Amino acid sequence: MTDGGLHPGANVSVSIPSPCQTMGIVEPKIFHSPDPLKLSCGKILPEFDLIYETYGRLNRRRDNAVLVCHALSGNHHAAGFHHPNDGKPGWWAHFIGSGKPLDTNRFFIVCPNHLGGCHGSTGPMSVDPQTERLYGTDFPIVTTRDWVNSELRLAEELGIKRWAAVAGGSLGGMLAMQWAIDQPEMTAHAIVIAAASRLSAQNIAFNEVARQAIISDPDFCGGRYAENNLLPRRGLMLARMLGHITYLSDQAMRERFGRELRSGHLNFGFDVEFQVESYLRHQGSSFVDRFDANTYLLMTKTLDYFDPAGEYGHDLAQAFAHVKAAFLLISFSSDWRFAPERSEEIMMALLRANKSVSYARIESELGHDDFLMPIQEYVAVFSAYMNKIADACEAGA
Amino acid sequence: MTDGGLHPGANVSVSIPSPCQTMGIVEPKIFHSPDPLKLSCGKILPEFDLIYETYGRLNRRRDNAVLVCHALSGNHHAAGFHHPNDGKPGWWAHFIGSGKPLDTNRFFIVCPNHLGGCHGSTGPMSVDPQTERLYGTDFPIVTTRDWVNSELRLAEELGIKRWAAVAGGSLGGMLAMQWAIDQPEMTAHAIVIAAASRLSAQNIAFNEVARQAIISDPDFCGGRYAENNLLPRRGLMLARMLGHITYLSDQAMRERFGRELRSGHLNFGFDVEFQVESYLRHQGSSFVDRFDANTYLLMTKTLDYFDPAGEYGHDLAQAFAHVKAAFLLISFSSDWRFAPERSEEIMMALLRANKSVSYARIESELGHDDFLMPIQEYVAVFSAYMNKIADACEAGA
Repeated sequence: MTDGGLHPGANVSVSIPSPCQTMGIVEPKIFHSPDPLKLSCGKILPEFDLIYETYGRLNRRRDNAVLVCHALSGNHHAAGFHHPNDGKPGWWAHFIGSGKPLDTNRFFIVCPNHLGGCHGSTGPMSVDPQTERLYGTDFPIVTTRDWVNSELRLAEELGIKRWAAVAGGSLGGMLAMQWAIDQPEMTAHAIVIAAASRLSAQNIAFNEVARQAIISDPDFCGGRYAENNLLPRRGLMLARMLGHITYLSDQAMRERFGRELRSGHLNFGFDVEFQVESYLRHQGSSFVDRFDANTYLLMTKTLDYFDPAGEYGHDLAQAFAHVKAAFLLISFSSDWRFAPERSEEIMMALLRANKSVSYARIESELGHDDFLMPIQEYVAVFSAYMNKIADACEAGA
Repeated sequence: MTDGGLHPGANVSVSIPSPCQTMGIVEPKIFHSPDPLKLSCGKILPEFDLIYETYGRLNRRRDNAVLVCHALSGNHHAAGFHHPNDGKPGWWAHFIGSGKPLDTNRFFIVCPNHLGGCHGSTGPMSVDPQTERLYGTDFPIVTTRDWVNSELRLAEELGIKRWAAVAGGSLGGMLAMQWAIDQPEMTAHAIVIAAASRLSAQNIAFNEVARQAIISDPDFCGGRYAENNLLPRRGLMLARMLGHITYLSDQAMRERFGRELRSGHLNFGFDVEFQVESYLRHQGSSFVDRFDANTYLLMTKTLDYFDPAGEYGHDLAQAFAHVKAAFLLISFSSDWRFAPERSEEIMMALLRANKSVSYARIESELGHDDFLMPIQEYVAVFSAYMNKIADACEAGA
């Protein structure tokens, strides 16, 4: 769900190898699609942009491309740095680079910002060419299917006829599933990490509280805050604070913060008192400066709507019937947002559909955000799986 | 944490015997303490009121009194009806009455609204006699110890020298623990249900998001909303919505709401769409009309501050060293807010302190709110324990 913004200042005792040497400076590119795109909601986008980054090189057979899909608050900047002075690299820098699971010596990695995003792809902060106003909340709610269809055009532009793999964590893992279902010929492998086949009522409930926090902020102005030079700062901050609680395990919170008091004593007031309050407020307020509230609303809806079995009489195996991809599923023991059982439901459906599936449940401590962390076993499993794919590409299979 | 407000319109398949016949019409009384009360924060309340209800009759030896302690959003109205047309009885009506665990034929039950409350006891909505203004956020943050000290005066007023039992769920269970620790001579039994010996970092984090939702609502006016004829409606609603998610188990939410759509189809907008959203918004908005935001802030702090082991080198057994009460601890298998492990920590500490303790882990489905539900095994255990106490009282032990 996150983009790695969780970790600055953290004290978790996980050994994190430096991701700094790997990618160097990367430069985003813009793909412009001048043709209309029909969306799941029935509306038509007359044209759109996708901002994206690539790492590694496309081989001559154009069969070593991997699509990396970001999660709720992520973007196209998955690895490397934008400037020599960047404080931190892209959100999946531990996994993309020479010798890493997504090895840039072997794969050509493509990471777009999804439609509806707020980092350069067409979304609520873009100008609607038909009205010449900012889209704001008028930007249509998009689904993972719409993302597949829009990113399909990017693949065409790049001359990619088939992804060696589509990979992502959380919402990104759901998108990988959607690719396998909607574009079976284009998806050779789907790497689905810390995901679920659909949200639970509790997941939707958390999203709904986050949305209400944003929408009920008077500075939201019905979604037209930008035109009024306002930001629904309080609402977006609350949404992010709440999200963070669900990204971390209870144990990780205990180990990181316990009940430690910031000043060492109770102050009998409502200022920051416990360390965990300070952490959450910091995470909330820094998020507001780098993420758009309308995009947050929209992407929580994309999550709520994801339910591939819905079209198939709620039988997930039926949804997978025409899939040609082999799957790697990875879950984390401490993830309570999308617990291992949710990955195991996907595995069972794939097996019932007679598909190829590998599954690893990684022992972990942090919670949902572990999909961003270079846990040894996780890296090993992911690398081994990707190396087999690369070997096959290089053998010209 | 709740007062039973969760359940109207619910579809959970739990058999609920009608609590309606039991208590009839009850009338709250006011106890006025004209003497100053020194609080844990160091401040002094010059005088205070406690509103309370009683059920059953105090016996001649005055040894059959039970103190019932309400939780975060509860109040003194634990059983019976206020008017013949009342839609629902007090919050613990399943447990208080003839033939129930707190049998009104045998016990004299006392239930006060805690200091800082908003239903008649002195709190943020009261007038500060020193300034003749509403207290608002100037009302001091009170602790469970302050509640013991204030309710001790009510006991004196009623001529009660020793509680046969102090009983409560959630925050109410914490208060029962505090009584046993602070007033060992006055507490014969402590009934601690769905509680914990202190909040986890995750619990504090949820409380902090709820507080920030209230405080950041522009209509909060720094806590002086009442004087401005305003209500921080949005913030308090968000706080309550969030609370509700933590009161219910994931399974209960799944069984009750699943992913059912209110209109039967996706509407691609931000209006209520899933049943769970409708439920949460209803719970949030109805809460605003019956609960004060400053009291909500204050009582979440009372929860955060509860940590009896803190004064004893973080050794809970030491905190219990001088306790004379026997304990009954009850936890619920589906409670993830204060999971059974939290009750078992208390049990282990009591055993290490060589105290008498009975413990029941009840198989349940709803979650934390099960402490309000008449689950057969729960009622049976609670009744059996209370009957032993009543037998002893009646034998003149």
